Order: sequence, then structure tokens, then C-alpha cells
Amino acid sequence: MADCDDDKLNDECGVFGIIGHDGAAAMTAIGLHALQHRGQESVGIVSCDRGVFHVEHGLGHVGKHFGSESQSVRGLAGTAAIGHVRYATTGGATTLRNVQPLFADLEFGGFALAHNGNLTNAFGLRHHLVSRGSLFQSNTDTEVIVHLMARSQADAAVDRLIESLRRVEGAYSLVALAHDTLFGVRDPLGVRPLVLGRIGGAWVLASETCAFDIIDAEFVRDVQPGEMLVIESGAETPRSLWPFAARPSRFCIFEYIYFARPDSQVEGRSVYGMRQRIGAELAREASVAADMVVPVPDSGVPAAIGYAAASGLAFELGIIRSHYIGRTFIEPHHRVRHLGVKMKHNANRPLIEGKRLILIDDSIVRGTTSKRIVEMMRAAGAREVHVRISSPPTMHSCFYGIDTPDEDELLAHGMTVGAMAAHIEADSLHFISVDGLYRALGKPGRNPEQPQYCDACFTGDYPTNLADRASGLLRREVTRSG
Amino acid sequence: MADCDDDKLNDECGVFGIIGHDGAAAMTAIGLHALQHRGQESVGIVSCDRGVFHVEHGLGHVGKHFGSESQSVRGLAGTAAIGHVRYATTGGATTLRNVQPLFADLEFGGFALAHNGNLTNAFGLRHHLVSRGSLFQSNTDTEVIVHLMARSQADAAVDRLIESLRRVEGAYSLVALAHDTLFGVRDPLGVRPLVLGRIGGAWVLASETCAFDIIDAEFVRDVQPGEMLVIESGAETPRSLWPFAARPSRFCIFEYIYFARPDSQVEGRSVYGMRQRIGAELAREASVAADMVVPVPDSGVPAAIGYAAASGLAFELGIIRSHYIGRTFIEPHHRVRHLGVKMKHNANRPLIEGKRLILIDDSIVRGTTSKRIVEMMRAAGAREVHVRISSPPTMHSCFYGIDTPDEDELLAHGMTVGAMAAHIEADSLHFISVDGLYRALGKPGRNPEQPQYCDACFTGDYPTNLADRASGLLRREVTRSG
Amino acid sequence: MADCDDDKLNDECGVFGIIGHDGAAAMTAIGLHALQHRGQESVGIVSCDRGVFHVEHGLGHVGKHFGSESQSVRGLAGTAAIGHVRYATTGGATTLRNVQPLFADLEFGGFALAHNGNLTNAFGLRHHLVSRGSLFQSNTDTEVIVHLMARSQADAAVDRLIESLRRVEGAYSLVALAHDTLFGVRDPLGVRPLVLGRIGGAWVLASETCAFDIIDAEFVRDVQPGEMLVIESGAETPRSLWPFAARPSRFCIFEYIYFARPDSQVEGRSVYGMRQRIGAELAREASVAADMVVPVPDSGVPAAIGYAAASGLAFELGIIRSHYIGRTFIEPHHRVRHLGVKMKHNANRPLIEGKRLILIDDSIVRGTTSKRIVEMMRAAGAREVHVRISSPPTMHSCFYGIDTPDEDELLAHGMTVGAMAAHIEADSLHFISVDGLYRALGKPGRNPEQPQYCDACFTGDYPTNLADRASGLLRREVTRSG
Amino acid sequence: MADCDDDKLNDECGVFGIIGHDGAAAMTAIGLHALQHRGQESVGIVSCDRGVFHVEHGLGHVGKHFGSESQSVRGLAGTAAIGHVRYATTGGATTLRNVQPLFADLEFGGFALAHNGNLTNAFGLRHHLVSRGSLFQSNTDTEVIVHLMARSQADAAVDRLIESLRRVEGAYSLVALAHDTLFGVRDPLGVRPLVLGRIGGAWVLASETCAFDIIDAEFVRDVQPGEMLVIESGAETPRSLWPFAARPSRFCIFEYIYFARPDSQVEGRSVYGMRQRIGAELAREASVAADMVVPVPDSGVPAAIGYAAASGLAFELGIIRSHYIGRTFIEPHHRVRHLGVKMKHNANRPLIEGKRLILIDDSIVRGTTSKRIVEMMRAAGAREVHVRISSPPTMHSCFYGIDTPDEDELLAHGMTVGAMAAHIEADSLHFISVDGLYRALGKPGRNPEQPQYCDACFTGDYPTNLADRASGLLRREVTRSG
Repeated sequence: MADCDDDKLNDECGVFGIIGHDGAAAMTAIGLHALQHRGQESVGIVSCDRGVFHVEHGLGHVGKHFGSESQSVRGLAGTAAIGHVRYATTGGATTLRNVQPLFADLEFGGFALAHNGNLTNAFGLRHHLVSRGSLFQSNTDTEVIVHLMARSQADAAVDRLIESLRRVEGAYSLVALAHDTLFGVRDPLGVRPLVLGRIGGAWVLASETCAFDIIDAEFVRDVQPGEMLVIESGAETPRSLWPFAARPSRFCIFEYIYFARPDSQVEGRSVYGMRQRIGAELAREASVAADMVVPVPDSGVPAAIGYAAASGLAFELGIIRSHYIGRTFIEPHHRVRHLGVKMKHNANRPLIEGKRLILIDDSIVRGTTSKRIVEMMRAAGAREVHVRISSPPTMHSCFYGIDTPDEDELLAHGMTVGAMAAHIEADSLHFISVDGLYRALGKPGRNPEQPQYCDACFTGDYPTNLADRASGLLRREVTRSG
Repeated sequence: MADCDDDKLNDECGVFGIIGHDGAAAMTAIGLHALQHRGQESVGIVSCDRGVFHVEHGLGHVGKHFGSESQSVRGLAGTAAIGHVRYATTGGATTLRNVQPLFADLEFGGFALAHNGNLTNAFGLRHHLVSRGSLFQSNTDTEVIVHLMARSQADAAVDRLIESLRRVEGAYSLVALAHDTLFGVRDPLGVRPLVLGRIGGAWVLASETCAFDIIDAEFVRDVQPGEMLVIESGAETPRSLWPFAARPSRFCIFEYIYFARPDSQVEGRSVYGMRQRIGAELAREASVAADMVVPVPDSGVPAAIGYAAASGLAFELGIIRSHYIGRTFIEPHHRVRHLGVKMKHNANRPLIEGKRLILIDDSIVRGTTSKRIVEMMRAAGAREVHVRISSPPTMHSCFYGIDTPDEDELLAHGMTVGAMAAHIEADSLHFISVDGLYRALGKPGRNPEQPQYCDACFTGDYPTNLADRASGLLRREVTRSG
Repeated sequence: MADCDDDKLNDECGVFGIIGHDGAAAMTAIGLHALQHRGQESVGIVSCDRGVFHVEHGLGHVGKHFGSESQSVRGLAGTAAIGHVRYATTGGATTLRNVQPLFADLEFGGFALAHNGNLTNAFGLRHHLVSRGSLFQSNTDTEVIVHLMARSQADAAVDRLIESLRRVEGAYSLVALAHDTLFGVRDPLGVRPLVLGRIGGAWVLASETCAFDIIDAEFVRDVQPGEMLVIESGAETPRSLWPFAARPSRFCIFEYIYFARPDSQVEGRSVYGMRQRIGAELAREASVAADMVVPVPDSGVPAAIGYAAASGLAFELGIIRSHYIGRTFIEPHHRVRHLGVKMKHNANRPLIEGKRLILIDDSIVRGTTSKRIVEMMRAAGAREVHVRISSPPTMHSCFYGIDTPDEDELLAHGMTVGAMAAHIEADSLHFISVDGLYRALGKPGRNPEQPQYCDACFTGDYPTNLADRASGLLRREVTRSG
Repeated sequence: MADCDDDKLNDECGVFGIIGHDGAAAMTAIGLHALQHRGQESVGIVSCDRGVFHVEHGLGHVGKHFGSESQSVRGLAGTAAIGHVRYATTGGATTLRNVQPLFADLEFGGFALAHNGNLTNAFGLRHHLVSRGSLFQSNTDTEVIVHLMARSQADAAVDRLIESLRRVEGAYSLVALAHDTLFGVRDPLGVRPLVLGRIGGAWVLASETCAFDIIDAEFVRDVQPGEMLVIESGAETPRSLWPFAARPSRFCIFEYIYFARPDSQVEGRSVYGMRQRIGAELAREASVAADMVVPVPDSGVPAAIGYAAASGLAFELGIIRSHYIGRTFIEPHHRVRHLGVKMKHNANRPLIEGKRLILIDDSIVRGTTSKRIVEMMRAAGAREVHVRISSPPTMHSCFYGIDTPDEDELLAHGMTVGAMAAHIEADSLHFISVDGLYRALGKPGRNPEQPQYCDACFTGDYPTNLADRASGLLRREVTRSG
């Protein structure tokens, strides 16, 4: 099953944690369902019942493993639990061994860890640990944190965790569970989101606020960049630690553009509202005469509404999306033109015939989908197709937890916007400018000295050292199954 | 798996047929994928390869059985095939025995039949046939047609089919396959849709034009009410027969409101466009001061766009829909309020807080979902919630192929609109009027002498005799599996 | 899964029925487990609970469908049930549609039927019924009985069943179930076995007595050739009817040689004991100097014990059998000589090295296994290999419920015993004589005027008309799945 | 699936290895099939293809994972492979994490390890390793060897392996695989078997010679106690190392009695022949007047043949065994007496009625099966039942790789033979004496100073230190799945 779009950037993970709730694992399963857009390839939950840990890992969707046909949730006793959904990049082929939360039996007791983000010095650390006798179970970067903890001589889990995190670099929003204690941590730059909530007497952590809505939890606040929350069972209030040197935050700007769910709040702001503002800014930057504004559904819809409102043009569903899982059908690949795209999208022919369209999408990655959609619109009779993209050109790989193809495969990496327009056969193509994007998010523009967000995929300006990339480390290959 | 909404009316079936194509079964599988919204519980394809028939039936989605992980399509050799997706009503619990197309080895050779609709005298005919020694394989009404054909003394398949159809009453859009011949038939009232298309030298039949778009077939025309198309392999043109007494057509008006896909054309008109017109009409009939127009996604979107345009109010995504299959999670039913609804819908809290909303939905069946959505909007801070429905109140059962609950369970059956508004706790509630609906569809209003559509679910005015219902016929119960 | 030996004759079916027992379906499942050797490809049970019938069919072993991991038995409510295990011949590829018991909703109510045997005029009857409008659900010969019953104008199930059976020819041991009544019938020749038992107040029917042992039922008597037992719920004693013209019985002699389980009693005699007597007779007919008697396990063991005792030679396990399911492994077909045979049998090398062996097997069908086993014994160092077979040469097909290959494939069909010995590379080869076989079974020899058993596979002397074979009737082919 | 008899001792594992063969993984799968009796709960194969390792693990039988319906073997490229079948004791519930061969990415490259036996100081070593930062993946004792290797500072795999094995105690027959090198090791006492074979230019290692027969490999010799074979790809001859201090061997005597397959050779002797000799010795020790000798099949057969020959009584199949997988059927537990036993064994009633039987079995563990079989024989009409057991009373737990219940559950642990006879309701009961057993194996008797075999389960004389047992070490509990 792969309902991730091959021609989109994909977030790697969503995390969830809860402590002090009788139905901790069930709440976690429901919360993860609301975070499913952040990872569809695997799901795991670890619960802790008075010191005894229970681990369930599976491939595929949350509902498949923790829905009503499954007995999985019943086995996950305890009042604390953490969970994880994953898309997979680091770690290659998805196998059960790479499914998070990771669990280990450390000297002080059981410890479970779920990670959203990506470490940029993991291979180097792994190499060092292996040379000293550590055996790695998975191919995930996350496992180095657990090995560092295993080797720490500190007594308490919290001290071991701090000691370990001081050695890693990169992006991490973590939830972790030791006996009676839930941890929530964001790296000093705060690249990935993490929010704190409250439900009755229980505390909850999640990647996005939409996971609070589904379980009727109240949003309390964002976990801050560089902050570690230590929440003991029954605590009146989480303990807040600041174990790292303070740095200006660099939240991922693409969470606003595409990754986060539109009904979530990020940095106290509506994602949906920001997308409309981006659409409106785009209309200002690149207006064109047309009959209607058409989103590429579903992700292009909020920006298209914003564009339509700003431009005074009609917002219309010129493309209809099928939500049935569209596994590609074998035989007729060569017979039906662009079948892969058509399994999901169809031109609303009677609407667009003879019309001039402004097509709104959030990004162009390889360009294959854009090219096929433009062609599909023309085949359905569109007179003009003007493409407007609510992000700047994606030219660089992400090393912070987003699955990007090699730079060579990024259409914008080696092509001008004009060449791209010709390639996808659009009548015109425009990307929002970097400064326009910052303006839409309420900044006066990008501060080149100290950018307010991580925008490395557009600018190549990476906010951390990239140790592994610099050293060119590679791993041996192993296939595993079962 | 039941991603059909329990609180919606559901179409029972979609049909597809093709003759004269090397990849007949693969084309059928792809076409059925585009018709998946018409039935998700089972799928079947029958192909014919120079007189040898191949039958594949399965429960669940098309992609599950005929996608790339399956070998099913490979076994379906031949240049002609028909297929069926089904939601299930008649026939009770979905078992493989009830999956269509039905196949039988008749005296003249193999014969396969797929049916969209419902026969209103099937139980009576079945009773008669059983008393004369017919053994029924399934619980479907459709099987009586096959038994009538088996008992016919005519030589040719076409004559047997005509003889049989002259004895049945009700709604039927059929595709059927005998050696070298594809049949397409609509009942004299034309209650359910059926369209004819062309791809290269092959002819195709489908419930809706969206199935043509996905395979790059060209839409030729609607099969007419009361028309039987007989298409021989390699035919230049289909043979058109008119075996029934002519009657004024009564196409199902609910296909416009909800069943058909918005990108399909019905009676030569855009379904999407009709829904926008209905929304606009609704705005005219029941305007109210508000801050925004919010669709209940996905089905309410086109009418909401129409309403917003007509009223000058903003169209906004105040409800975000998750498309991940939301099996209900077991344990916490009692803990999370309205979890079932929340698995699919979430209020876009930052957008709607403090706002006056006009909520657009296509229908109210039992009212459970409407009540919960209104409550969810209020819990998210909406100041006023005005509900507008793009169909008249649903007060009567359908006997023509739509799954409706018993009349007692229909909220509108025993309640005034005012009582309904109170029940769902809306600030106001309005349904489009029957005449308003007809106006939106381009009629001057409903002709009470000779209604232009079947609108029995709103009016109780059934266009055919309901023999089985009158006789109160019931069947014995059998459970089967495997 | 096919743990049937390709180079054996295989019984088609085992049947079981019970009435008047609270756990009717569970008893049936257990009884069928004891009859598993009579058919491994499919299993079915039908129960009747105060007029409501429940049907469960599955492919594979009894334990797979009705074991403790399955919920199947729970759904089979009622105090009466019948069941069937099947190997499959008539009906081609095993699909769920051909799994018995067959169930039909007849005019008088539900009716279920399970059949061991084979009808010799089924195709002719089927052809006639189809021409009059009957629709067949399966490819089984058994279904003609159900259609004949459906067309009967008699009121009672028993009368319809008698009327139908009077029109069929061939071998049948049947158990059937109508509301409150269990039926047990053997054809006039009594080709296949059927026994009656008692457990508490309940009556049981089964193909063999070993099915009574497993449920602690008491063996009452054989159902007689041509007898129909009608057992009503709560009956003190079964009602015995004799609806057919009396004929001398012709019980299948191969049941003694191979099909029946050694711990069963047939015609009041121990199957195990008869096999020992056959082995002893074989020793008398064909003694040879040797060091030990080695059975081909498991079926050759009883005859080998008899042979060893009669000859005074040692009985030794010169071949060890693995009972783990030995699916053939793909790739190395060409690398390991005779891997298929070796998955199941291994030479006990240290025992047989340098020894002269008498190898006892029950039959030679195609000869492939015999050839490979002789070769395996030699490769393990045997000095001489003398093969003794406890049946006469199998030269003719069976039309009474045993799966035999076409006559051309039977090694004995076109070869002398001498040629066969050369073919399998044995030092000597001997089959028991037909008269020797009859003597072992306590007869003075075969009565050529009126043979005491059906021995058509050895003699070609078929005890019934073979109408279908004579008319060369064939069916159209259909593939089905799901 | 549990076709292991609950009332038997069960061997934990079988191992197989091959190097220098094009179809290494396929050969391993076939070899493991022949070793299936040594472990049915899980199976794994690791292959190495020019330094790239491929790992496949599964639960259940070999054929299920590596048979023709599976693609598993195809993925296991390379000319070297090792495999493992497992019954499971150490490591509790069988999960994929505990399935062997274990695989680890060590500093020198990939390393795979399969272990038959059990380490007696594993928990202590594990505790030490965890305190120094090692993370354990499984609950198996075997994993300590891998961690010790990971922490070794030696360069070569062979040196690391030797260094690690010098620190472990207990029983181990190992096969291991590093790049281009296959290892075979037996602990200094040689408790578990391991044999070396040759097929073409390839070398093979296996637990028993029957695994060589199935692939047409030639048996070369036993790996010696304390010997380590190092076999490089293409080697003319294995390199033999002796890294441990020499000690007198203590081969497990129960391998002769029950564990090994009868067609295997152990220490150069026929297992089948040894079992016959044990039976003959038993006849001499404990003769009794009777009508026949009846084995409890299948394991009691060779001893029964020996007993019958020595006593001059008839050998008869008084119990018939069903080899169909007999999952217990749910509901009627309480209805059918001893259903569990009957699923597998049935009394051959017509044979034994009124007879005096000598029942031969290989051991009595809990005594439940013995008791039920005696009762079953009496219910079938046996006049006398004399039980003879081809092993001494099993009174002590095994710590060397055999799954034994707690001593309290062993019938012989707290009962005299007389009391046991009364408990199982036998007319008489006799176990072979310890000295008689040694005599049957060709020794003058047991040497109490220096026993020739490990017979601790009979005598309590354990040949090694039992460090973990002495320290009472326990582990934390974790449930895992997926």
C-alpha cells in the first residue's frame, strides 16, 4: 500500500504520547489516526503498565492494526503510552525492525522512544558505537540515541537522555516513555512541531493539535525549541528543562505549506489560514486573466480559495479526486495514458471545456504529476492552463525528516522556471517568491542574516552542520523479512 | 470494511461492460475503480474468451482484488468482459454467493449478468419459480432474470433476455454478456443511468461517464430508457431494440443530488454544475446572515460553492475530512464523544471560532451525523450554525436500488422541519423545496401529473407497481459462509 | 495443499451425520477429522436449528476451518448436522461452489445433501434438466439429485428423495438433512460404506466406524445396500425403507486394501486384520529369499506385518516417513534427484545396507513412486529389492467415487508384470492374485458369475451401466474463483 | 499450531549450514525440512552473497515459509547459507525477534549464528553486558555470544568467536556464517549432535544425517566434541580447530531414545538399531505374559519391534495414529472424553478386544497421555495393559536444550514406579534400568565415576556448572508483537 504520492515531499513521522489515562493505548491509537497524514507505512504503540512494557508494531495504517477488528489495543495495558506513524526514509525498505517506537530494556528498566525528524550525525555515531561493541537492531538514525543511553553511566533515565541528546545533531521532536515518566523534547532549532495538551487529569503530547481535537483534549501550548518536558504520572504540571545551549528557532516552513493538517494550529496560528494567505500573496505576485481558479485536490484547496478570493475569480472543482485506494493495475500500463494519475484525479470535463484555468498546487517535486495533470486538463478541453505554486521552487534535499528525492531528480534543481513551464506544457508557471512566502506568514520578508524559518529546500541554507553528508558514510546492505 | 456512511443513502451498484478489446478485463477493472463510489462491498468481473467464460468475485474494493498485487486479472482472458461493484441491500449479508455479475451455464452457452437497480416483483417471481423446481443460488433479485432465461424456450440469448425482462418490474440498468455479444438495457422508466462509449474499435457501457474518462474512452450517448443495445464483437454500430411499451422516463433525481460523481455527465449535463445550481437555488430560498458557507465534505462541496457564489458569502473549509479508512476503535467508544464522526470529520477550530456558519449538506437521513456535526461546530466555538440541505426532506423508502432505512428511521418521516432543527440543535434548518429542486434542474417546477423524475423518496409517488411490498413476501433465512 | 499422493488412488469423500445432539456441529467436525483420510481438499458442515439452516464451507483440512482458532462451529447452531470431506474428481478444480454438503432452499424448506460415491448417469440427467431450465450451481454430479428433488411434485422430503434416487445410477452413500429429519442411504449395490451409531439419545451416521470411536459413539450396524434410513429428531429407532429393487451387493474391494482406516470395521470385520490376511496370502503366493520385510509406510504396514509373520522374516522399518507437510520446494527440482518422494520417505540406510528386501506396498498406479522408492533403496545400499503388492494390477478406471487416472496412465494397463518389474527396476515383482485376494477376505475365490465385490479396477467388470461414459458427454468449461 | 506433543520432551532446535553451492538457500530449506522433528515453531535462513546478507524468518513449518507457494527462497541469493528450526524454551513466547539464525552487522561485516543447545550462564553474561551498554534484541541465550563477539577487539571473525565461546558454558552445537566462511562448533562435552557432509564441491553441516540423505549429500563424519570447523568457500578440506580444554564427552542419551530421527546415524550408529536394542533389553528386564506388543506410535515403534522380536510375541498396530494436524476443537471439550488424545490416537478395537497387551512407549513425562492411552485401550476391550518404557524414569529438568517441565510436573519426580502404575491404571509398569540402557548402547553399564553420556534427566548428574540456576536470575517481562 502506498497512498503517498510519489511526486510529493512526504513528512516522515508523527508522534503521540499520553500519561495518566486509563485508556492510554486506545487514546494513542485514535490520536495517531488523526496524524496518519504524517506517515502511512508503519505504526507502533508502546504502553507501560506499572513497569511492564507492551510493544505492538505493524506495517500499514493505524486502523489496520488498532481498529475494531484487531485485538492489538487490548494487549497494551497501562496508563501511559507513546505511539508513532512513519513514512520512512532513513532505514530504507520498511520492515518491522525499523518501526517505532523503539523499545529497549536498559539497565534502569524499559525505555521507549518515538522520533519525528532526522539526525545529521547518526552514521558517524553509529560507526563509533559499533566499533565499541554495540549491536544495532534497526537501520534507523533514532537507534543511536538508545545506544548512547545504554552506555551512559548516569542513574536516572532523564540524565541519560540529556547526555545522549547533547551528542546528536539535527532535527528531533521526541516523545519517550520510561517507567512512570513521559518525555517530550524538541531540538534547539525546533524544526519539527510538538504540542502539549490536557485531557482530564492526563497530559498529552502530539505532533499536531488535530490529534487533540479527535480525543477532546485541550491544547495547552507548543513545546518550545530546545525544551524538554518531563511529565510524571499524576503530575500537576510538567517539569520544563532546558538542557541545550539556546539558539534562534528555525521551524520548518514547509509544515505551513503542505505537511501539517489544515485544521491544526502551529505556533499559535491556523495552518488553513496561512495557506489562504499564501494563496492570496500568490495572486498578488502572479495574476493572469482566467475563467476560474482550480485546486489540485486536496492539498491545493486552501491556497486556491485564498487565490480566488484575492483575484475575484471563481473557485471551482475542475479536478475531482477519488479517495479509494488506487493501487496501480498491472497489465494495461501501456494502454491507458497516465493511468497512475487518473486513479486519483479526473478532469471535470463539462466544467472546464473551453475555459482558461489557474491551477493551484503546493509544490513541484519531480514534475511528473504536474505534467500529467496539465495534459489531462488540456485533453478535457481547457483552453489555457496557468500553473501557480504556493511554494518557491524546491531545489535542495531535506536532511531534517522530510523525504526528498536526490537533488538531481528535483525538477527545479537544474531548470529555470521558464524551462519548467515548457516541460510541464503550462501556458504560464509561477512560484511564490521566498519573500512573498515570509510575508504571507507575517514577516516583513526573509531575514538573510538570521532566517526566521528553515527553508533549506528552497535556499540551500541548512541551519545545522551536516556531518554524515560531509563524511560520505554509507552502510552495508542487508535484506530482512518476517 | 464499511466506508459507506451509515447516515447516507447509498447507491447499490455500478456496472461496466466492454467488447472488442484485447485487455477487456483490465479495462473493466479500471472502469469499476472509477465507479467505486457506487458500491464498495463487493466486486466481480466475468470475461469471455472465445466461448469460455472466466469468473472472479471478491468482497471489498476493486483494487484489493484486481490491483497489481493480485493475479486475478491475468486469469480473465478474452476480448469481452462485464463487471459490477455493489453496496448490497437485497440479499442481506454480503457473501460471495450474492456478488455479481451472476453467471450461469444456460442451454445456449454461458451467460453473465450485472444489474444496477432493484426489481419490485422479484420475490413473487422467485416463489413461482421455486414451486416449479428452480434452485436459487443467491438471495439477489437479479437471479430471477437468469432463471426466467433458463426456462425460456427461445433459441437466441437476446430473445430469452427480452422474454424475461418483459416479466419483471422495477428499476434496472443491465449489462450482460453471452458468447460474442454484449448487452446493455435500461428499464422503460430509465430510473438508473447507463451510458455508451467508444475506445478504438471497442464499445463500452458504464453507469457513469467518469468510467470512460479513466480509460480514455469517448462518451457516445446515454442508453435510452426502455432501450436494449445488442453489441456484437467487431460491430460497426450497436443494434438498438425497443422491446417494451414506451413510457415517460423517470430518472432518479437523487443521482443529481448525491449518487453520481460530480465529474460525470448525466442526461448530457454536468452533475457538478447541477449541484452548484441547486446550491444557488437554496441560497435564494433560504438566505440568512452569516460569516461563511461551510460544506460538509466531500459531498456538500459543489452545492456550497453554488450557495456561496449566489449569496456573496465566503466559501470556507470549516470541516476537514480525513480520508484514511476510519474503522471505529474498540475500547474507547464511551470515552470520546462522537468518535465515529470524528474519525472522518474535524472542525477547523481556528477558522470558525466565534463565527456564524451556514452548513451545507446534501441530505438528512437518520439525522445522527447532522446532530453530531452541529455539536462539533459549536464545541469548536461557532456562534451560530444554520443548516441548509440540498435535497427536500427524505421521507420515504426507495425500492429502485437505493439503500434506505425503514421509514420509521428516517428523521423526516415523522417530524416537521422545525422539530428536526430542534433535534439537531441547529439555529435554523432549511431543505430545498421540491419545486426549487426541479427549477435548479431546468424545469419550470415539478409536473404533478407527470413528474419528470423519480422523486419517490421525497414525495412517496412511486412510478411503478410495488408487487412484492404489497404481498408482504418474506424469505427463509440461511447463513452461509466461505 | 495436496498431501494426497499423486501416485495413489484416492477416495473421493467421507460423510457424517448426527441428529438429536446439543453439540451437533462440533460432533460433526470431530467425526470428519477422523474421516480426513477420505478427503483433504474441502470440508463442509450444514446444521439445522429448528428449521433455520447454517452452512459453512471451506477448502483444506477440517481442523483449519473448524478447529479452535476458528469461529465456524459457533455459527452452526442446532441439534442436527451433516458434514462432508472431499478429495475431488467430478467437478474439476476445487472451488467453494463444489464443496459439499450441497444446500438448497426447496419448496418444502431447506435441504442439505452429502454424497460419497459417483453417479454414472449424471451428465445425461444434467443435460436434460438444463434443457428444461434448471440452473446448476456446481460441477458436481451430486447436484442432479437436488434438482430432481426440486422438480418433484411430492409433498414430503422423503418422497422427493426416493423419487429422485430412482432416476440416478452409480454409487452413492448419502447423508441428508431436512427439517427435523436425518437421512442415510446406500445405493442398491452398496459400493461405498455407511455405518449407523448411537451416542446417548442421538443417532449418528458415518462412512467408517473410526468416526464413532473418536466421539465415544457406539457402533450399531452397517446401513445395508439399498436401504434408506429416516431418522426423526428424538426417534427411538430409525425407520428403515427399501425403495429400490433388490440386487446382490458389490462392496468396493479396494476399501479393504487401502481406502478405509485400519482401525475401522467394515461389514463387521477389522480392516487391519483383513490387510494382514492379504499380506499373509501374498507371502504364500510369492515367497522369496530375503533378509527382511519392509513396508512402504504408512499404508503398506499391516500387509507387511502379515507377510512377515507368514514368512517368518523380520518386519523392519526400512523406510522412514516424514509427516510434515511436504510442499515441494521450488528452485532445486533439477538438483535433487526425486525430491518429491524424499520430502516424504527416506531410506533407513544403516538398516538396509547390503540387505535383501521384500518391499510391501498396497498398489501400483502410475508406477512413478514405486520406481523412485526402489531406486532410493538401491542408492542406500540394498542388495536386492523384491516388490510385493497387496492388490492385483490396477488396469481400469473407477466410476464409483475413486479418483483414478485415465487408463492409459495406469502402468498395468498396457504392461505385463514382467515389463513392470523391469520398469521399476525391481529384482522381482508380484501382485496378489484376484482369487488370492478373495480368499484373504474369506471367500472361496471370486465368483465369476456373481462377483462378491466390486473389483472393476482389476477386472473391468463394472456392476452398473455407464451411461455418461457411453454417450461421451462433456461439459463446457468455466473458471471461477472467490 | 502446536503439533508438538505436550506430554513429550521436545528438542529445541535443528541447524543446517552449507557453503560453496549455487542453490545454498534452497538446499538449506530442504535440509531443514528433514530436521523439522527437531523444531516446528519457527524457521529461519540467512544467506550470504558476496558479502551481502539476506535474512528470512518465519513462524511455523519450513514448508510454509520456503515451500513452492512462497517467494522467500528466491530472495536468499548466495552460495553460502545457514538455517535453523526451533521449538522454543529459553525466550518464552515465540516471536519473530527470537527466531534464529540471529544476524548482526559487526565491525568486520555481517555475522549469522544458529544454535542447538542451551547456555547455562547466559543470564549472568547478559546482565553484565547490559550494565555495560549492550542492547539485547531477543530473549534468547544465544544472543550473548553475538554481543561478546561485538565487544571483542580481535580482528578476525574466527578469533572473536573463539574468544566469546570461551566465556560461555553449557551445550551448543553451532553453525555460523561470516563472509566466505562457514563455522561448525560443538561444545567440549558434545551434548548435542552435529555432522559434516559433502555434496559435489560444497560442504554441509547438519544436526543429523537425515538432512544429508534428502539432498543426496554424503555423510563425512561427526563434528567432534570441542571441535571448531572453519570452512572457507572453495576449501578442499575444512580447517579443524580445538580452542577449548579437552574433556570427556557427554552426548545426550535421549537423542538415542527419542529425539533423533530413526534413519539418522549418531556416533556412527543407527538410531533405529539402537532403539530396537533398547526394546530387546527391556523385554529381557521385564517380560510378562501377553498376547501382543503394541507401540504407542510413532516413536514407540522401533523399541516395540525389538521387544517383540526378543520376546517372541506378535508386533501389532493396536493404536492407529492420525497424522492430520489435530488442533483441538473448541466447544466439546467437556463432552468427548480425552478428545485431545483421540485427535491423534485411536484404539484398533477389533484387534485388541479381549487381549493382553504390552504397550511400548519411549518415556513418561507428565503421565497424562499414558493415563489416557491406557484408559482408551481398556475402553476398547483390552483385558490387560502392561506398560513398558524404553527410558528410565524422567525425574530431572534438562538445562542443555531440551524443553522439560518443572520437576514438580514430572510424574516420576515424586512417585515410585508402583505409584505411577496405579496412577496410569496399568496392570504393570516397567522402565528400562539406567544400566540396561547403557548396555543396549554397547557399554558394559553406566560408569558412575565418568558417565559415558549425559543422563542428567534420569540421574540428576549434570555435567556442567549451572551458574544461572544457582544465581536465580530472572528477566523483566516485555510483550512484543508484529
